[in-house]
Amino acid sequence: MNETIELIHGDGGKYTSELIKGIFYKHFNNSILTSGIDSALLTVDTGKMAFTTDSFVVKPLFFSGGNIGKLAVCGTVNDLAVSGAKPLYLSAGFIIEEGFSIEILDLIVEEMAKQCKLSGVKIVTGDTKVVEKGSADRIFINTAGVGVIQNNYEMKKIEAGDKIIVSGDVGNHGTAITLERYNIDVKSHIKSDCASVCPIVEAIKEYYPCIKVMKDPTRGGLAEILNEISDIAKLGIRLVEKNIPVLREVKGINKMLGLDPLYMACEGRVVIVVKSEVAEEVLHKLQSLKQCQNASIIGSFTEDLEQIVYIENSFGGKRILNTLDGEMLPRIC
Amino acid sequence: MNETIELIHGDGGKYTSELIKGIFYKHFNNSILTSGIDSALLTVDTGKMAFTTDSFVVKPLFFSGGNIGKLAVCGTVNDLAVSGAKPLYLSAGFIIEEGFSIEILDLIVEEMAKQCKLSGVKIVTGDTKVVEKGSADRIFINTAGVGVIQNNYEMKKIEAGDKIIVSGDVGNHGTAITLERYNIDVKSHIKSDCASVCPIVEAIKEYYPCIKVMKDPTRGGLAEILNEISDIAKLGIRLVEKNIPVLREVKGINKMLGLDPLYMACEGRVVIVVKSEVAEEVLHKLQSLKQCQNASIIGSFTEDLEQIVYIENSFGGKRILNTLDGEMLPRIC
Repeated sequence: MNETIELIHGDGGKYTSELIKGIFYKHFNNSILTSGIDSALLTVDTGKMAFTTDSFVVKPLFFSGGNIGKLAVCGTVNDLAVSGAKPLYLSAGFIIEEGFSIEILDLIVEEMAKQCKLSGVKIVTGDTKVVEKGSADRIFINTAGVGVIQNNYEMKKIEAGDKIIVSGDVGNHGTAITLERYNIDVKSHIKSDCASVCPIVEAIKEYYPCIKVMKDPTRGGLAEILNEISDIAKLGIRLVEKNIPVLREVKGINKMLGLDPLYMACEGRVVIVVKSEVAEEVLHKLQSLKQCQNASIIGSFTEDLEQIVYIENSFGGKRILNTLDGEMLPRIC
Repeated sequence: MNETIELIHGDGGKYTSELIKGIFYKHFNNSILTSGIDSALLTVDTGKMAFTTDSFVVKPLFFSGGNIGKLAVCGTVNDLAVSGAKPLYLSAGFIIEEGFSIEILDLIVEEMAKQCKLSGVKIVTGDTKVVEKGSADRIFINTAGVGVIQNNYEMKKIEAGDKIIVSGDVGNHGTAITLERYNIDVKSHIKSDCASVCPIVEAIKEYYPCIKVMKDPTRGGLAEILNEISDIAKLGIRLVEKNIPVLREVKGINKMLGLDPLYMACEGRVVIVVKSEVAEEVLHKLQSLKQCQNASIIGSFTEDLEQIVYIENSFGGKRILNTLDGEMLPRIC
C-alpha cells in the first residue's frame, strides 16, 4: 500500500477498496460492516432510539490524553449516553486531504476501534472522501450514532431546588488543546478528559426517575451548557464557586492566558440535574468511579433570577456567567 | 445576522445558536430536531433497520441539475432505498470554511429541505463546525440516515442467467460535473441525474422476491458497481453494448475528453439484478416512471468468464470492463 493518501483512494475503485480493507476493516472488524453493502442492517426492538451526529475537526490531531479518533467515537457515544441511550452502532465518515500519512490514519482508526470496544459500540457503516492538497486541513471525521433508550429515561421538568452535579473537574480538554495549539511551553500534567461517559450514566441508572437532565459540556464548556439548561428550565442557576471542580493547574494556566476554564470544552464529563433529595446519594455513587473522583454538587436552580446563571464566591460576591459571546478557541473538537 | 460564516459561528455559543435557528431550524422545521437535545429521539418498531452515511465534497457546489445539498440528501436516501429500506431520518453535519456566504448556505439548506420533503425524510439531528479560511474548501456536508427495511427485502444469491437492469441513462452526473469543473464551453443540455431513487424502488416493490440486488452506481459509475456485484456473485457479466443507455451528448463529450461514461458517477440511477423470468415485467414497470423512461436490460450473469465484466458490441467483439484503476475525476460527490 502507498504511504500517503492519494486522490485515487477516494475514487470508489481499486485503491478505495484497498484502503477500506487495509485500514478500516482491519480495525473495525465486524460482520455488519464487512458485508460491504450500501447500508448496515440492524435488528431493532420496539422502543425509543436515539440518533445523533458530530463532525470532528480538532487541531492538533493528537493531544495530551487523546486524538481525533478517540474524540470522534467518545463524542458521539457521549451524546447518546447523556440522552439516556445505550450506544450501539456508529457510522464513520472520513474527509482526508491528499498527502495525509496512511500510518497516522492507521493510528487514528486503531484508537477509534479501541474506544468502540470500551463503549460496546460497533462502527457498522462508513465513507471515505479524499480532497486535493490544500482543500482540507489533514483529516476531518464525522460520526453518527444510534442507541436504545434505557429504563424509559426522559428529560423532566426542572424545578427550583433541583441540584446540579458535575461528574469531574472541568476545562481540562480545552486547556490541553490550547497548550498544544499555541506551543505554550509550561510544565504541566494537564490531559484532555476525553473519555466515554457510558460508565457514568450506567452507574446512576437506578436514579433515572429522579434525574431531570444529563448533558455533556463540550463546546462552550460548563458555562454554555448551564445557560442552555437554565433557558429550557426558565429558572436561574446559583453556582457555588468553591464547589466547581477545576484543577489548580488548569486554573493557573487559564489565568495566565486570560481564559476562563468554565467556558472550556470538556469531553468526558456529565452535568446532571437531579432532585435535591437524592443529590448526595447520586454524588456518592459517582465518586465511587475512578473517572468521577472529583464529582461535585456545584449549585442549584432558583426562581430568584430568571434564566440567569450566576456564581457566588465565599464572600457572597456574585458574578454572572453569560452565554458565550465571541471569545473562543476554534477547532476544540 | 452576519453575511458570512465566521469562526464564532462554530464555538457552540450565541452565534452558533443564531445560525442554527436562523438557517437550519427555518428549513428543517420538525419537532424532533427543534427540541434541541443532544440526540434525536425516534420511536421504532421491531424489525430490520438500515443505517448508512456519506460525506459530500463535490466541486463545484452548484452544477447543472443540482447542488451539494441535493446530493447530500439524495445520496444517503438512495443508499437506504437500494438496501430495500424506506428512508426515515437523516442527520446532517456541516463543516464550513470561515468566510463562506450565509446566503449560499441558506440556498443549500433550502434545497436539502426540499429534497427531504420529496423523499419523505426528516433531518432530525445535526452539527456545525467552522474551520479557518484555507482549512476546508468552502463547505463539506455529511449525512447519515436510518430507514426501515420493507417487505423483508434482502439481497439474494445471484445465479447465471439473472438479468441486469439499469433504471436510466448513465454518466450524466459525472459528465455535468466535468463540464462545469473545467469550464468546458460546449453547448450541451446535460444535467446531473441527481434525484431520489425512492420512487423507483417503490415501483418495483411487488417484485422484491425476485430481485437479487439493487445498487446505485455512484463513484466509479456503472462499471465499478458491476465489478463489485460480479465479485460478490462469483460470476461473469455479459453486457450488450447497444442496450446500455448513454445519452448521445454524454457519449460525444466523453469521447472528446477521452473519458468513459460507464465509469462516470450517476446520482439517481439504480442497477437491479433480477430473475430472468420477470426482467421484462420489471422493465415495463420502471419505464412507466418519468425518471426511468430510458431504463434498459443491459446484460446478464454468466458462468463463462468468472468475475469478469465484459461488453459485447453488435459485431460480436468483446472488451473487458475492468474495475477502476487510477483514472478518475476527484470530488464528483
